[in-house]
Amino acid sequence: MDCQNCGQPLKYRNPVPTVDIIIRHQGGIILIKRRNPPYGWALPGGFVDYGESLEEAAIREAREETGLHITNLKQFHTYSDPERDSRLHTITTVYTATADGTLQAGDDAAQAALFWPDNLPSLAFDHDRILADYLARHAHRPQNKVAPKP
Amino acid sequence: MDCQNCGQPLKYRNPVPTVDIIIRHQGGIILIKRRNPPYGWALPGGFVDYGESLEEAAIREAREETGLHITNLKQFHTYSDPERDSRLHTITTVYTATADGTLQAGDDAAQAALFWPDNLPSLAFDHDRILADYLARHAHRPQNKVAPKP
Repeated sequence: MDCQNCGQPLKYRNPVPTVDIIIRHQGGIILIKRRNPPYGWALPGGFVDYGESLEEAAIREAREETGLHITNLKQFHTYSDPERDSRLHTITTVYTATADGTLQAGDDAAQAALFWPDNLPSLAFDHDRILADYLARHAHRPQNKVAPKP
Repeated sequence: MDCQNCGQPLKYRNPVPTVDIIIRHQGGIILIKRRNPPYGWALPGGFVDYGESLEEAAIREAREETGLHITNLKQFHTYSDPERDSRLHTITTVYTATADGTLQAGDDAAQAALFWPDNLPSLAFDHDRILADYLARHAHRPQNKVAPKP
């Protein structure tokens, strides 16, 4: 990472904290289609601002990308493999949450949609692994509802 | 935070990831006495290097500060309150672990010692809260051993 003023590489580099959110909604899980690389479907989430707690970042990113107000946040796990994000070394803390509001893509998300856990698309980053870990721990059965087309 | 080359403040600041480790050893918990501000007793831990996983950072910091080789790492919780560290906004992922080797203070630690959970000193950062959360979740009874003097 380089200084944004002088362009020189920074001597002390740290991994960069992010959040991702597994939003349980109407029996499914909310995913967003990314507007920026790496493209594809992913969990809603993003970079944590300086001075912002992880929970605040999760609420902000969910609102920006999906239009939903999330509640019942529970910390699931923090993933830190240096290879998990091809852009730079990010460390993501994953939350589970439920949501109120109307699903509407925004900010870095080109689309936002509800998926059944047994019919998930391939995901960007290590989000396949994150959802596999989540589903292994929380046996998740689709409810008797019809999923909207992604 | 300023650029180490040009001294200008960085435009994009991120919270800085750290690790802390609750090392269970011989019926007690290992604490270190800090050589740098904020002074006082604390959990062993430190900054995560770029390209290093949280688990690698925890093993390295435990070895540097306590001389112990830690195993059985389990992620406990990630704490991100912007006020938790008076130096800068750090986000710490806390691990529990057991240890092999001989306890010996090193690196940023002036002392390393074993404490009984029912006789803990006041701790730096938010480590009092972290250990309270841990002890509340893992009812911890001192074993029939004599603790060394801190």
